Amino acid sequence: MINADILTAIITPFSDDGTINFDALEKLTNHLIDTGSKGFVIGGTTGETPTLSHDEKIELYTRFAQIVDGRGVIIAGTGSNNTFETTHFTAEVSQIPGIDYALVVVPYYNKPDQRGMIAHFTAVAEQSSVPLIIYNIPGRTGVTMANDTVVELSKNENIAGVKQCTDMADFEYIVEHTDDDFNVFTGEDAQALFAKIVGGRGVISVASHVYGQEIRDMYDSLYAGNYQKAGDLMRFLSPKIKALFMYPSPSPVKAVLNAQGYEVGDCRLPILSLNDEEKAILAQRLGARDLASAKG
Amino acid sequence: MINADILTAIITPFSDDGTINFDALEKLTNHLIDTGSKGFVIGGTTGETPTLSHDEKIELYTRFAQIVDGRGVIIAGTGSNNTFETTHFTAEVSQIPGIDYALVVVPYYNKPDQRGMIAHFTAVAEQSSVPLIIYNIPGRTGVTMANDTVVELSKNENIAGVKQCTDMADFEYIVEHTDDDFNVFTGEDAQALFAKIVGGRGVISVASHVYGQEIRDMYDSLYAGNYQKAGDLMRFLSPKIKALFMYPSPSPVKAVLNAQGYEVGDCRLPILSLNDEEKAILAQRLGARDLASAKG
Amino acid sequence: MINADILTAIITPFSDDGTINFDALEKLTNHLIDTGSKGFVIGGTTGETPTLSHDEKIELYTRFAQIVDGRGVIIAGTGSNNTFETTHFTAEVSQIPGIDYALVVVPYYNKPDQRGMIAHFTAVAEQSSVPLIIYNIPGRTGVTMANDTVVELSKNENIAGVKQCTDMADFEYIVEHTDDDFNVFTGEDAQALFAKIVGGRGVISVASHVYGQEIRDMYDSLYAGNYQKAGDLMRFLSPKIKALFMYPSPSPVKAVLNAQGYEVGDCRLPILSLNDEEKAILAQRLGARDLASAKG
Amino acid sequence: MINADILTAIITPFSDDGTINFDALEKLTNHLIDTGSKGFVIGGTTGETPTLSHDEKIELYTRFAQIVDGRGVIIAGTGSNNTFETTHFTAEVSQIPGIDYALVVVPYYNKPDQRGMIAHFTAVAEQSSVPLIIYNIPGRTGVTMANDTVVELSKNENIAGVKQCTDMADFEYIVEHTDDDFNVFTGEDAQALFAKIVGGRGVISVASHVYGQEIRDMYDSLYAGNYQKAGDLMRFLSPKIKALFMYPSPSPVKAVLNAQGYEVGDCRLPILSLNDEEKAILAQRLGARDLASAKG
Repeated sequence: MINADILTAIITPFSDDGTINFDALEKLTNHLIDTGSKGFVIGGTTGETPTLSHDEKIELYTRFAQIVDGRGVIIAGTGSNNTFETTHFTAEVSQIPGIDYALVVVPYYNKPDQRGMIAHFTAVAEQSSVPLIIYNIPGRTGVTMANDTVVELSKNENIAGVKQCTDMADFEYIVEHTDDDFNVFTGEDAQALFAKIVGGRGVISVASHVYGQEIRDMYDSLYAGNYQKAGDLMRFLSPKIKALFMYPSPSPVKAVLNAQGYEVGDCRLPILSLNDEEKAILAQRLGARDLASAKG
Repeated sequence: MINADILTAIITPFSDDGTINFDALEKLTNHLIDTGSKGFVIGGTTGETPTLSHDEKIELYTRFAQIVDGRGVIIAGTGSNNTFETTHFTAEVSQIPGIDYALVVVPYYNKPDQRGMIAHFTAVAEQSSVPLIIYNIPGRTGVTMANDTVVELSKNENIAGVKQCTDMADFEYIVEHTDDDFNVFTGEDAQALFAKIVGGRGVISVASHVYGQEIRDMYDSLYAGNYQKAGDLMRFLSPKIKALFMYPSPSPVKAVLNAQGYEVGDCRLPILSLNDEEKAILAQRLGARDLASAKG
Repeated sequence: MINADILTAIITPFSDDGTINFDALEKLTNHLIDTGSKGFVIGGTTGETPTLSHDEKIELYTRFAQIVDGRGVIIAGTGSNNTFETTHFTAEVSQIPGIDYALVVVPYYNKPDQRGMIAHFTAVAEQSSVPLIIYNIPGRTGVTMANDTVVELSKNENIAGVKQCTDMADFEYIVEHTDDDFNVFTGEDAQALFAKIVGGRGVISVASHVYGQEIRDMYDSLYAGNYQKAGDLMRFLSPKIKALFMYPSPSPVKAVLNAQGYEVGDCRLPILSLNDEEKAILAQRLGARDLASAKG
Repeated sequence: MINADILTAIITPFSDDGTINFDALEKLTNHLIDTGSKGFVIGGTTGETPTLSHDEKIELYTRFAQIVDGRGVIIAGTGSNNTFETTHFTAEVSQIPGIDYALVVVPYYNKPDQRGMIAHFTAVAEQSSVPLIIYNIPGRTGVTMANDTVVELSKNENIAGVKQCTDMADFEYIVEHTDDDFNVFTGEDAQALFAKIVGGRGVISVASHVYGQEIRDMYDSLYAGNYQKAGDLMRFLSPKIKALFMYPSPSPVKAVLNAQGYEVGDCRLPILSLNDEEKAILAQRLGARDLASAKG
């Protein structure tokens, strides 16, 4: 069971020469741990994985595990829409010291059916030395893993959880129909509070790059029995979350982090960094004078 | 401010001869108050209002107020897609003793824009002796009242709240941007818990006809600081709520109530009462041996 | 069988005092016949029927039949979401001399299922002295009549056709699975050409108020074997059609007609007439200097 | 300008040992040319490209060009959601003798905005020795290339067309606003007829694997001025097209081809070949006794 309620799907910082910036990664990681993250997804969508080469990913995961050094759980992204490739890459990543789980996305673009998804995840799980977390995000993949498919896959000993990006009714169904040690996370920041309340493990967050402390406070208020304060924080966070996805992710998060001195660099194509006009609009939507001062 | 967290959008019981059954209405009303309802919407969609004549509605509202007799707040449905007609009917209903508010739906079918909605609600509010509650339900009306339109209308002294049937982000926005005494209810049972947590007044419920006690317990658990129990109850309720809308409402609720001895009769066309096969499927979805035993 | 390919869903002109303007109606009707309309829907959505009283509708239909005087088929709108009321009103309208068919909309707002729709239309058909045309428009009613329900109802001797506002695949299915004398019309101007090509009877049009001649030419080009010219005209019409629905219908059509001297007056609430800014935007979208010059 | 109205997005045949079966490819290619295909997309989605390695794709494209040997235009799939990778792979493929165009999909999964799409396609076009065809398929990519973005990219000398999978209004807009030599194809078989009529170049088809002759006849009937026959054929084809996509593509097409002796083999994971039950359902939906006899 994953003993962590807030995990950050961490961005990949790039240097001016376009390579991964490990110094920036370390600084950011420490900041995220300080502001309440209990774990990470490295090499997720937010990490611009589609644009990382095989070798970059292996180095990124290896060095990230060294940076975190036991201070949080690590889930590494290994999925693609090619079962053969995913199986091999997951097996390889699962050997990296410090990687606790592999995040395997539902195959995007080629749109398998439920039977194909089961075959895909079963094949990948078989060769992996760490348990898998399913990543179910229809808005990106064009296809939905059905609730009962998640439930069926949850019985596989090497499938340990799901990062779910559909609606709350689905989320509740999965919590209800899987064992208590199956880790059900929402991948939607907007559901962070509700997901926790109905029995999910917590949230795999993008907004925590900027609003980690507020999400931390929200959860802690809830634990302390103060649902009103938790609700107030959720209501505060919602428009900020929306704003952080108003341009292709992770460009808004990177823009804020750059403005606040984290030197995470540009995005890789086909994602562009925000231009000045977009930065101004984003700041305004975040209720801040400028991105440097965007905070809780 | 409406001091009530659970309101039931009560069905209209019919006798075998097709007329309104006031004895059944009284029995059901008492039951609902006993199981936690603090108020009512009478003559809403669940009350099959499209099939009630003008005179039936006036009698229904008048006698229902006598039945409730101060034991809960009463909101009476008065809206249509004809501004002239709505204005006159709302004014008439607002004179009925015991009617506290008028529920005015966003005009359905003819699809006004935001400007038209503002004109509609402003005209109706002007002639009503009781404050209005806006009913925003795009799934039925084909058109959405925008958040900022709700906010603008909330400034009208004679518009006291909204029954909102869109997503949680909209709900949170409206709570955030309206005064504390503006009554923001969700009309979606599936949002009952979340709506309360983020600062809504509560829920206008259909499921409370059958699961009133569980919704009561859910809210009371939350108030007592036990969010886990509240979450467990929400997760219990969600599939039941879904089942109660698997056939055109209110036929499933009426089927359960009939099975449990409340003699609420059939639906009026174009809504049909459930047939035996549908009743069996509904019972199964409610996790019950039969509809008579469907309970929390 | 309806021997007409272009029918106009005609607006209801109002005088400054708010009553129906029959002089304007006559002038407009003549214009529409001159520009290619072979029939009419009177008292449809475009006719603002939700805002007409019972007596207004009876007078409107009676006098409109006298105006048309055999120069085109007449379909009169009689539907609502109350089966009892629809049955009686359809029966009454069906006695008006010159009314050839009754347009009965799928019940909106209360969302019956397929079984309820069949019961509704069967009940209405039984009491009507003229055959019914089903009006299937999910975007307004919130519910879709399934293809197989249309097919089943097409076997009722007193149901003569359908005005279909879903996608082309549905349209083709219905044409394929109903008898040749069942009249399948599209109610979407954007489908006017395709619907004709795959075997539909034609279009029940709103755009024909302004672009009747172009729609006439489009159909006639097709009949003459010149598909390229028909296609060019469809491509010309598409953005105009979109523009005519950019504000709540029929306000854009009425704005154009007023600008062109047809004196059709304002809309009734909750539909507002266009303001000056909206008129300017509409003209621009119609590719015209101003609304008076908007033409093919 | 591409002088071809029907292009087949050809499947990739696999041998029992899992390698590409070039004999089957040749046999199938000849069959497709015989039944009316005037060109091909090789290595599209239908070709299961996500599961082909770099080397397999290079060999596939090289040998396919030799098989076709000038008997039709060839468009080779080269796109991904990584701009760097797409640029290099497109440049490489563009050097293969006989490849006329490169099909570059809008980046899937990471969801660039319009600005990012323009940067992506501009970068790829710059390095390619053959012109690009944009592939706009929101149902798979999760993101829509806006009409005006297509129009803007059409001005790039090395971007020659678009395979469009959105609605007919978009299609018409693009035809209207691009130069006559810009090749606008529909990628939706269901739009094959309408796309041609409104001025598109034609269809990039999957159904042509099975119903090539019928699509050929449909277009030829249209050219001959017989729109009714063309419409009848479209109506005949529509349910077949739907059936061919009822399971993940290309498994239905491969099942039919295998049944008809083309030995195209299984699909690669995550797409599964049809099981017996699925084959029976598919045959029934194609209106055939079994898949071997599924025909026009």
